[in-house]
Amino acid sequence: MEPWKKEGSFDAGSISSIYTHTRMKWMPLLYGITAGLSTLVIVFMLVWTFHFRGGFAWQDFPAIQFNWHPVLMVVSLIVLYGHGILVYRLLRNEPKKKLKLLHAIMMITALLLASVGLKAVFDSHNLAEPPIDNLYTLHSWIGLAAVICFALQWLFGFVAFLFPGVRHSLRASYMPLHVFGGLMIFGLATAAALMGLLEKAIFSRVSYAPLTAEGILINSTGIAIASLSLLIVYIATRWQYKRQPLPEDELLLADQLAE
Amino acid sequence: MEPWKKEGSFDAGSISSIYTHTRMKWMPLLYGITAGLSTLVIVFMLVWTFHFRGGFAWQDFPAIQFNWHPVLMVVSLIVLYGHGILVYRLLRNEPKKKLKLLHAIMMITALLLASVGLKAVFDSHNLAEPPIDNLYTLHSWIGLAAVICFALQWLFGFVAFLFPGVRHSLRASYMPLHVFGGLMIFGLATAAALMGLLEKAIFSRVSYAPLTAEGILINSTGIAIASLSLLIVYIATRWQYKRQPLPEDELLLADQLAE
Repeated sequence: MEPWKKEGSFDAGSISSIYTHTRMKWMPLLYGITAGLSTLVIVFMLVWTFHFRGGFAWQDFPAIQFNWHPVLMVVSLIVLYGHGILVYRLLRNEPKKKLKLLHAIMMITALLLASVGLKAVFDSHNLAEPPIDNLYTLHSWIGLAAVICFALQWLFGFVAFLFPGVRHSLRASYMPLHVFGGLMIFGLATAAALMGLLEKAIFSRVSYAPLTAEGILINSTGIAIASLSLLIVYIATRWQYKRQPLPEDELLLADQLAE
Repeated sequence: MEPWKKEGSFDAGSISSIYTHTRMKWMPLLYGITAGLSTLVIVFMLVWTFHFRGGFAWQDFPAIQFNWHPVLMVVSLIVLYGHGILVYRLLRNEPKKKLKLLHAIMMITALLLASVGLKAVFDSHNLAEPPIDNLYTLHSWIGLAAVICFALQWLFGFVAFLFPGVRHSLRASYMPLHVFGGLMIFGLATAAALMGLLEKAIFSRVSYAPLTAEGILINSTGIAIASLSLLIVYIATRWQYKRQPLPEDELLLADQLAE
């Protein structure tokens, strides 16, 4: 009935490895598109920043300092977050312990970059003459909610899965919520990114209607981000691509259960 | 190992019905919150329309005709769409055939209401003096993509699941894609709704910064829509709440397989 359940366990033989091959057939193509879209999104964001928005600066030029905000948020909470989600499925032959650590490091790096991205937007408002209000648009509400949930998710994940001595049953029962929460926060971050692009396009609206080159670039970036997120959620939710335990993972688990 | 797999089949006895009870324990609460949020979203949209935006009109007053757009899109592609997704899990004791028909009717109703909602926004642009450009914002691109995908999804679903004579194996292999596609289009519709609220708030921005009553209402509507969508995706993706085949469904399936 469910031959993949056997694959990767001690008695897995050549039949199951042929099965794995069929099952994983589309993965290289799907990840190829994911990598391509990720690159495209970053290139679009950099072209937008340098060609239309005056490049990067820090507090001496608050209006230009703002430009760190969209770039850092997209690099951290879309591209890095998305790859952090996929790490178990992409590096499936690495031991679980190593993958958990890598996942946690990628996610905390994303959180740090996102924090710098938030600092950039608050500075660009507060240091402007006259200062600009903070946190009044729906983009800012949804975006801040996404960052706060992301930080809590990291903390809960760290305590549940990396902190030594947590009972296996507790870890196992938190796992579905961690996975669902992670994907939903990723969805929130995607919505926030799209709203951010929209709001920036309108605020500099002299260049939005009728569609100019900048408007088309902004909208295309949004379409690329939406497609990338969709694809990441697709890869992350197909049972076919789920990483199977390696023999050494099962030994480790047996040790933990025996404790 | 997986006792719920037995539940609902012919040999299901009192043990499995106790199991069902435990498994479904949170469903009334979760659906209660879903129904409450749905009502709240509609009330927020109507208060916004009547109290701040001048109510409803058709082509004689294009600026007021616009107001049909946000209300109809949210009613159709958030509330009705969301309930259409949940119909199998909410009315789990109805026969499958009836639920498929109800699902299809709810979804085509949503599509019709959404079409009227689109007509309202195009009219409000084209009949304005001077006319306003169509389809230049990222909201319009993402929103139109969501409606087109929704229409295609309905068509494919109709052909695959309601059209008589389609092979069971074909139906079964399309099902995961239909479910994933449906949830992703729902996500796109949610993102489009949030972007629409944001863009309308900015376009009538005299009332957005610093936050006024209208701004808070718009943002709160967005938070309520995001929460509602999240909850619907949660209920729709938990295995615990998946509808189990009834005896009559299994008889019907056996008939189809024997053909």
